[in-house]
Amino acid sequence: MIINLSKDISHFLIIKTENIRYLSNFTGEDAFLLISSDKKILFVDSRFTVQAKEEVFNDIEVIEYKPPIENFIFDNFKIDKLGFEDTIKYSFYNLLSQKFGVDKIVVKKDFVENFRIIKNDKEIEKILKAEEISEKSFMKTLELIKEGTSEKDLSIELEYQMKKLGGEKNGFDTIILFGERGALPHGKPGDRKLKNNKAIIFDFGTIFNGYHSDCTRTVIFGNMSSDFMEAFNIVKDAQIMGIEYIKENLKGYEVDGVSRNYIKDKGYGDYFGHGLGHGVGLEIHERPTLSPRGEEELKENMVVTIEPGIYIPNKLGIRIEDLVVVKKNGCLNLTKLDKYIKI
Amino acid sequence: MIINLSKDISHFLIIKTENIRYLSNFTGEDAFLLISSDKKILFVDSRFTVQAKEEVFNDIEVIEYKPPIENFIFDNFKIDKLGFEDTIKYSFYNLLSQKFGVDKIVVKKDFVENFRIIKNDKEIEKILKAEEISEKSFMKTLELIKEGTSEKDLSIELEYQMKKLGGEKNGFDTIILFGERGALPHGKPGDRKLKNNKAIIFDFGTIFNGYHSDCTRTVIFGNMSSDFMEAFNIVKDAQIMGIEYIKENLKGYEVDGVSRNYIKDKGYGDYFGHGLGHGVGLEIHERPTLSPRGEEELKENMVVTIEPGIYIPNKLGIRIEDLVVVKKNGCLNLTKLDKYIKI
Repeated sequence: MIINLSKDISHFLIIKTENIRYLSNFTGEDAFLLISSDKKILFVDSRFTVQAKEEVFNDIEVIEYKPPIENFIFDNFKIDKLGFEDTIKYSFYNLLSQKFGVDKIVVKKDFVENFRIIKNDKEIEKILKAEEISEKSFMKTLELIKEGTSEKDLSIELEYQMKKLGGEKNGFDTIILFGERGALPHGKPGDRKLKNNKAIIFDFGTIFNGYHSDCTRTVIFGNMSSDFMEAFNIVKDAQIMGIEYIKENLKGYEVDGVSRNYIKDKGYGDYFGHGLGHGVGLEIHERPTLSPRGEEELKENMVVTIEPGIYIPNKLGIRIEDLVVVKKNGCLNLTKLDKYIKI
Repeated sequence: MIINLSKDISHFLIIKTENIRYLSNFTGEDAFLLISSDKKILFVDSRFTVQAKEEVFNDIEVIEYKPPIENFIFDNFKIDKLGFEDTIKYSFYNLLSQKFGVDKIVVKKDFVENFRIIKNDKEIEKILKAEEISEKSFMKTLELIKEGTSEKDLSIELEYQMKKLGGEKNGFDTIILFGERGALPHGKPGDRKLKNNKAIIFDFGTIFNGYHSDCTRTVIFGNMSSDFMEAFNIVKDAQIMGIEYIKENLKGYEVDGVSRNYIKDKGYGDYFGHGLGHGVGLEIHERPTLSPRGEEELKENMVVTIEPGIYIPNKLGIRIEDLVVVKKNGCLNLTKLDKYIKI
């Protein structure tokens, strides 16, 4: 991949793991990628030298360095102006500015993320594969649902299946919550036992070749109250509206608004507190944002979630989430699961 | 817990997840803890309000805020001088300095970490419990070792067991590597099949109530060469020496030196590239560091790993790791597994 440095920097230093992976294919940790106009050098410590040499793309040179990295680079390279990511820790910024001088360093926002936000076919295939693994695992987990099972039991089995089927590791902390516990949008699976006539929120995902999946279903176990079913259908319809509306050139807040206004019109506006969706790729949450504050314009081959919810404290929680690829005139939905699942 | 602010700040803003958990007991994400001389306020977004109110200690007030946090705090609180952690992202530092003014903010290193580095009895119990869970899971996984099993198969089963036995999630990416692959200190489990007369490195850990365990064993499957056994015994003896030497008031590099010099004297100095150990607690890697650069003095009830290794590329890898509590005249070893395990 050819990276053109802007004229105000001679070198760019990358330390964010996902950005290094994107540009170099190195999957380890604690590495640094230094880009100049004619070279990309990956610095690793001795724990990762062999692995890095096995993994990296052809255009990357691997050098084993002795920490601290700022001294190693300062002593071995002629740096005129050093760019770096604004996601680095303040403490590291401080070390860099002391070593190189404040006038020799330039902070750049989203230098690699601007490439990453649009996915190529290979990346979309990896996300789809991760999604397929997690959906198959979810279907197997559904078979285990019965009275007396705990949230934890189900999450352990779901996570086990995702790995058996080829997922590298959990894409994020699995959320499985029974009944009114579903009102916690980010609750943790606990020991409580499943009773009949409860809903179950599953929010789960895995990683395949570094790329994430993300899916939520609210499963109905037994019979639900009419209040619950009203809210369920509003979430389902709001989600479908978002999926049908999304396409290139819209802004994040416009897509969010379609689902949000529908939920508001139905009288549940106070109970949908989070954004409609987020980008997914090497990170589980990345740009663009679909929310009232999502100013970014959508482009073809961005991958985003669409996940409205209704959460009424101590009463109920419902969320339905698909993963879609933005297209010129709509989207490609990577999620194949039914939205209404009753057991 | 009473936190005394230094005189140069009126408020301290904490955003590091583990530090927030330590002071507030909140286990979610994307929160901010603001400490003043008479109050501790936890700011959460609507996804976490219910959970936060359930979880926090008595002395913590929970407030649901509307992002962005710097505006919310600026508009609602009278801040004279704001301290914050040096681990925050440069981009967030930038937002804070723009909102409050550079002369109103003060960066503090290790403000909460200085408390966290010494563990109390309850914390040590949690680490021990995590260690016990992972050791039991390891023993169960040993039963599955046979020719033809893959590294991934074993890691999936080990991780499954750790959760079944009460671990919250994996403490870090499990390392299971066969034979010469063990020379990658941080390699990933792959699809290669186990053959007779190979060693297997297991490096694994779980989390219990937020606290990590960390353990490594090099398991012998079949018969090993005399070269391998020589290196194995050197690692084992170096590890025992470190454990017998460690106690309060030594510096990290002194403990590291005892094991490292022994390995060097035996002619393997070039093959032990990482530090001897690291602190363990709410983070898997925290202070203090046992390495040639470990200047920090050890104190009673610090918890550290002792994990020398020998790695000869394309030939062999050996590491043995215990988790110990530093004491006045020695240490308490939390690891009960044998160091020599043959199958």
